Amino acid sequence: MSVQDGSPTAFSEATLKAYLAQTPLLAQHFGGKIADLSVTEIGDGNLNFVFFVRGPDAALAIKQALPWSRMSKGARALGSNRLGFETRALQIFAEFAPQHVPHIYHYDEGNALMAQEFLTPHIILRKGLMAAQDYPLLGDHISTYLANCLYGSSGLGMAPSRRRALQADFARNIELCEITERLVFTHPFQTAASNRWSTPDLDAEVAALQANAALITRVQALKLGFLTQSEALLHGDLHSGSIMLTADQTQVIDPEFATFGPMGFDIGMLLGNLMLAYFAQPGHAGRPAYKAQTLRLVEQIWQEFARKFSDLAKADGWSTPLVQPLLSGVLADTIGYAAIEMIRRIIGAAHIAEFETIADAKLRVKCEKAALNHAVALLTHPAPDTIGILTAGL
Amino acid sequence: MSVQDGSPTAFSEATLKAYLAQTPLLAQHFGGKIADLSVTEIGDGNLNFVFFVRGPDAALAIKQALPWSRMSKGARALGSNRLGFETRALQIFAEFAPQHVPHIYHYDEGNALMAQEFLTPHIILRKGLMAAQDYPLLGDHISTYLANCLYGSSGLGMAPSRRRALQADFARNIELCEITERLVFTHPFQTAASNRWSTPDLDAEVAALQANAALITRVQALKLGFLTQSEALLHGDLHSGSIMLTADQTQVIDPEFATFGPMGFDIGMLLGNLMLAYFAQPGHAGRPAYKAQTLRLVEQIWQEFARKFSDLAKADGWSTPLVQPLLSGVLADTIGYAAIEMIRRIIGAAHIAEFETIADAKLRVKCEKAALNHAVALLTHPAPDTIGILTAGL
Repeated sequence: MSVQDGSPTAFSEATLKAYLAQTPLLAQHFGGKIADLSVTEIGDGNLNFVFFVRGPDAALAIKQALPWSRMSKGARALGSNRLGFETRALQIFAEFAPQHVPHIYHYDEGNALMAQEFLTPHIILRKGLMAAQDYPLLGDHISTYLANCLYGSSGLGMAPSRRRALQADFARNIELCEITERLVFTHPFQTAASNRWSTPDLDAEVAALQANAALITRVQALKLGFLTQSEALLHGDLHSGSIMLTADQTQVIDPEFATFGPMGFDIGMLLGNLMLAYFAQPGHAGRPAYKAQTLRLVEQIWQEFARKFSDLAKADGWSTPLVQPLLSGVLADTIGYAAIEMIRRIIGAAHIAEFETIADAKLRVKCEKAALNHAVALLTHPAPDTIGILTAGL
Repeated sequence: MSVQDGSPTAFSEATLKAYLAQTPLLAQHFGGKIADLSVTEIGDGNLNFVFFVRGPDAALAIKQALPWSRMSKGARALGSNRLGFETRALQIFAEFAPQHVPHIYHYDEGNALMAQEFLTPHIILRKGLMAAQDYPLLGDHISTYLANCLYGSSGLGMAPSRRRALQADFARNIELCEITERLVFTHPFQTAASNRWSTPDLDAEVAALQANAALITRVQALKLGFLTQSEALLHGDLHSGSIMLTADQTQVIDPEFATFGPMGFDIGMLLGNLMLAYFAQPGHAGRPAYKAQTLRLVEQIWQEFARKFSDLAKADGWSTPLVQPLLSGVLADTIGYAAIEMIRRIIGAAHIAEFETIADAKLRVKCEKAALNHAVALLTHPAPDTIGILTAGL
């Protein structure tokens, strides 16, 4: 790994151990037993290095966000301050839903390094969905996370002056928002080199979608909403790879894309990923009932989010006639953003394991095509005003 | 005037001349003839000192924004960086509508001082309206200012990354936004020591208004919009005291309250002030036709704003199905914010000369009552979807 002048240096197992030994709080966390630690670099995302550091009595997940993307091997510049946004977002979300975010032990801006709670035996939700695992508490947990965090940073839940100060901070998260703008909202809906899809099987669908004027207008309106609706502090990348869980616990990680935006963006990205898991199910071993269960989870998350958000607003004295129209707008946004997420994961730059791991190409295309057609119908729905629209006809 | 440690010092005529002599760019502006300058402190706003500096060949308006409010004589702390927000806002608006903002010659952060074009023979629009002056170009000019500045800083007109950087800057204008939140949106709609109105004549109207649940919900929704809809960079205080004009020229001054917010806030505050001028007309000398003319101006400003905004969007390739719903939302907001402005200028802390200068108390109350009733009807209108609603029944 090259060292860039004045930039933080990528850690190796040896240098990370030396760093831990020299950082009292972290050394103490491991009872000083630094020599006994096992260090594994497991980063499976696109941007960062993640080390699992395990000792006899304690463990930590250590994340390093260097000024370049992990996948580009030093070539592409990307501000390393993204880890600062992630750390501050986690701290804010911990005010509202401490049980659903990892604990932060240490943040070192100079080394672009952050140490957080080692979540075990948690796995990534995406993997659990592919294995058709049961998560009976997931709907309750994640709707609490969404309601608490989105209400807590909304104009109803947070004092205006604190909100403005946070907006001033998170509006500086420009580089990562640019990635979202480009890869979620722009490229998939036009000819772009970064797009890829199962070709030639989906060529006709992609061409039709990109030529669908009503759909493009709806996508532009949703992109404009992402740019201008500063409703709440968003996670900004709440797909099923950003949730780690067990049967009992649910933690939301990796909010490095955090920004103020429309609440429906976070909810929609999550529900869109659940819908994709649904459409990919025929390509994975799994009980037949799991498909229906996934659809019920989608509806449950919205319904419990809306109920919990309303309860929080009511407890603060806000009236139902104020809150209900707001939630109606969030629902329409949610359905729209879910559909965009479904489309961009099939025809854009960043695909998902649910489809990519289906070895039978014909089956994969069949699953992708069904998901794509469903998403197109959602984006051109005349009145997306109940959550049932998201799952209708399935 | 007391001097606070580390704070800029208030200028007197003598010290301001010394400052001008020591500042090459400004000394040069006056051809070096500093001794010949006449300096008059004319600040008639609540917050700042404004000096008119006139020499034989040139003139400047010099504004000083000290870390306290002008009216509080040093007692109340207020960040002096408000002049920085004003200066940067004027520079941005000058990109979009240079013909309608004053030229900035100099900004000195340390002395909290800014030198701008001396506008002559301009007068404040509020005074022109009270004198029933004709401004045949005002509707065209101010709708151009609004369309160009609001479109230019909207999600349609400005690149997302530049917008985020500007949002990061203007979200720090917290103190002045707090004043708006308190005096425009909160205090007038509850019992508050800062409220004052023609008592006892309007006591019943005020009590009814503050007990009107539907109205309060609408005001809360509009306040929430002010806090969360980052549609465009607003002037933030666009009443008829922030516009200087002649028959030929129209300049918008004093955007120290600049913040990203809903477009309808700027347009509504302006139209609300024009409506107040209309309702105050019976208390002022004036041709009878001037009332109808003022109502036509209100409608013209919206219609030309909407047309010019649409034209700008069309020129950038945005489709009518995208732009029309956006403008419908701006119109509903405009009517709502206009009504709030009308109410807060009659029952809140900051009143306006149109009513205050009506010597006949009975006539003043009659005018105020008519305006108040009209504003209440606007805020409880079920579907504010055409500009005619603002002037209906008048």
